[in-house]
Amino acid sequence: MATTNGRTEILRAARITFARHGFDGASIRDIAQEAGLSLSALYYYFPSKQDALFELIHNAFTWFSARAVETVESAGSDPIDRIATLVRFTIRYRSTYREISRVILRDTERLGADSFAEIRRLQRESRDIFVGVVEQGREAGAFSVENPDIAARAILSIVNSIPLWFSKDGTLSMEELENQYTRFSLRLLGLDPSDEQIERLLALPVPPLDVPVGDPDAEVPAPAL
Amino acid sequence: MATTNGRTEILRAARITFARHGFDGASIRDIAQEAGLSLSALYYYFPSKQDALFELIHNAFTWFSARAVETVESAGSDPIDRIATLVRFTIRYRSTYREISRVILRDTERLGADSFAEIRRLQRESRDIFVGVVEQGREAGAFSVENPDIAARAILSIVNSIPLWFSKDGTLSMEELENQYTRFSLRLLGLDPSDEQIERLLALPVPPLDVPVGDPDAEVPAPAL
Repeated sequence: MATTNGRTEILRAARITFARHGFDGASIRDIAQEAGLSLSALYYYFPSKQDALFELIHNAFTWFSARAVETVESAGSDPIDRIATLVRFTIRYRSTYREISRVILRDTERLGADSFAEIRRLQRESRDIFVGVVEQGREAGAFSVENPDIAARAILSIVNSIPLWFSKDGTLSMEELENQYTRFSLRLLGLDPSDEQIERLLALPVPPLDVPVGDPDAEVPAPAL
Repeated sequence: MATTNGRTEILRAARITFARHGFDGASIRDIAQEAGLSLSALYYYFPSKQDALFELIHNAFTWFSARAVETVESAGSDPIDRIATLVRFTIRYRSTYREISRVILRDTERLGADSFAEIRRLQRESRDIFVGVVEQGREAGAFSVENPDIAARAILSIVNSIPLWFSKDGTLSMEELENQYTRFSLRLLGLDPSDEQIERLLALPVPPLDVPVGDPDAEVPAPAL
């Protein structure tokens, strides 16, 4: 068995199992079964359920933060383009990777104190990408916000709630979701974009998620609320 | 033992225990211990943990929706006053009753299908109070929103995330939180209120929560995200 594949396979199984049963409701045996591995193989990679949970969430934040930084850079220097593209990337991410989003939201607090503190640090790092874009826009005179930290948190609260209610099979399309939420984000920053401005922003390229969009079992994890 | 008190005491204990350990991590024995009651007394009131979870969440939504309607009515007929007062009431509620908010967010899905559907219905009812105020303001020409349902959801996403990060012991004061979030809510609705307008709105009366604000064990439950 290839070490990397075994580890990856277990993390995939852990994500699915935790999402389905909750961390406390999922047993190591459930994860092994989902991964198609023996219990001893599982213990070889992860001495405890908490170790798997930590690595899952850790990878999620690390992956998201790295891609979010790339996304912002890809959008050029205009603060409005930067926040709009970052928001659209995060909307796509959140509506695609609902499983890991829910695990993070629900089960992060089941981690031990040290692991929990480390995840909080990564979460802060991920939020700071948004704060940075807002601050830059404020300094450039593009955004009117009193407190970039709280404004960034408000934008994140809206986008991060998506996995709790949005379904790609529902009545609201992805295009409509991006349209509305791009407008909301700019309004929160003190702008009132016209329909033409929104249309221009929605035509800007967004880096791909690297996995088939819509695959609920896709290998990519998501950041916490 | 008075029936009502026993029931109330168990629900209080269930809320604390679920908040601390999660629904799956909490045992009936934990709840009985927290309530200071025997296991048989517990089973007398609630045949299962799920029954207690359902009643807890059901009461939370019912209480919130009734008070939210009263709050809106108490604010008069101006749509801006109505949404601002409703938002401030919900901010106070969310920052005070963090325990039940987290139980709802995390454990609602542990309910059986029928109970879950009933809670979803109550959640919809609670959201519709916000949607109604937004629609009324749009018809009156006070708000500029394309889709009142999504706009109301965005406001709720911001306010409902409060228990996930805000602490009354932190650096951000309640006053500042109400100030910023009142502004954000109005901005989402297409307004850009001046500092004077915000100050006027923050001076409007908000119905009390009926329990000591800041008491984390207070008897009042909260609605779901």
